Amino acid sequence: MLNTIDHVGVAVEDLESALKLYRDGLGMPQVHRETVEDQGVEAVLLDVGDSHVELLKPLGPETAVGKFLARRGPGLHHVAYRVADVEETLGELSAAGLRLIDEHARTGIRGSRVAFLHPGSTGGVLTEIVQPADGAH
Amino acid sequence: MLNTIDHVGVAVEDLESALKLYRDGLGMPQVHRETVEDQGVEAVLLDVGDSHVELLKPLGPETAVGKFLARRGPGLHHVAYRVADVEETLGELSAAGLRLIDEHARTGIRGSRVAFLHPGSTGGVLTEIVQPADGAH
Repeated sequence: MLNTIDHVGVAVEDLESALKLYRDGLGMPQVHRETVEDQGVEAVLLDVGDSHVELLKPLGPETAVGKFLARRGPGLHHVAYRVADVEETLGELSAAGLRLIDEHARTGIRGSRVAFLHPGSTGGVLTEIVQPADGAH
Repeated sequence: MLNTIDHVGVAVEDLESALKLYRDGLGMPQVHRETVEDQGVEAVLLDVGDSHVELLKPLGPETAVGKFLARRGPGLHHVAYRVADVEETLGELSAAGLRLIDEHARTGIRGSRVAFLHPGSTGGVLTEIVQPADGAH
């Protein structure tokens, strides 16, 4: 059902210093940068093997990531699993009794189709499923 | 330097209900269970593609994960990257200016060699590097 870890999402206050850390310190190639208005973030993807680190800088304090930063400070924000078909997987997860934040997929970074599960039914872990756009991974 | 995301570590209060979620709800095969005294946890590995979810139940309230749970509740605890040679990578990370919790590798779950970086130099993300035992991944 879940193919692999697609990425970990990391909430950051300062995107440039986070980039310096992940790109220069940890040696991960930066592959994408995008403002995702729907999620209220400026996001950067870096490659690590076939997976990614997704740096998330909130567009303002009232966004979900802005509130997360105010409450918990910078750090791990969510984990995302790659799936072949996000709508089909949503149906399977719902049938298994998991609570969904998104009943249907929405457009995520780099043209992906994404949906979030509710951390109340995933042991406090904000969990995303991602169907990459054709050709991306 | 970092080959891929080896696992995400998840702090849990109740291992059986977390197993029910990850194994039965999310469909991840359980592949290993071990008490890691050195890290003060009972840990379970589940497969997701070539990576893992590592469930961590503290052995007591004074352990690192026990204190994490008391402070933040259950949820994402750390991310671990797979490396070919943990000692060599520690040298590279130290030279890049990162602060280390472990100057040298110690034995982790399933006979792996592991070391933690200090979250103070990784943007609040507790970061582990893992060299799997021969034959494991």
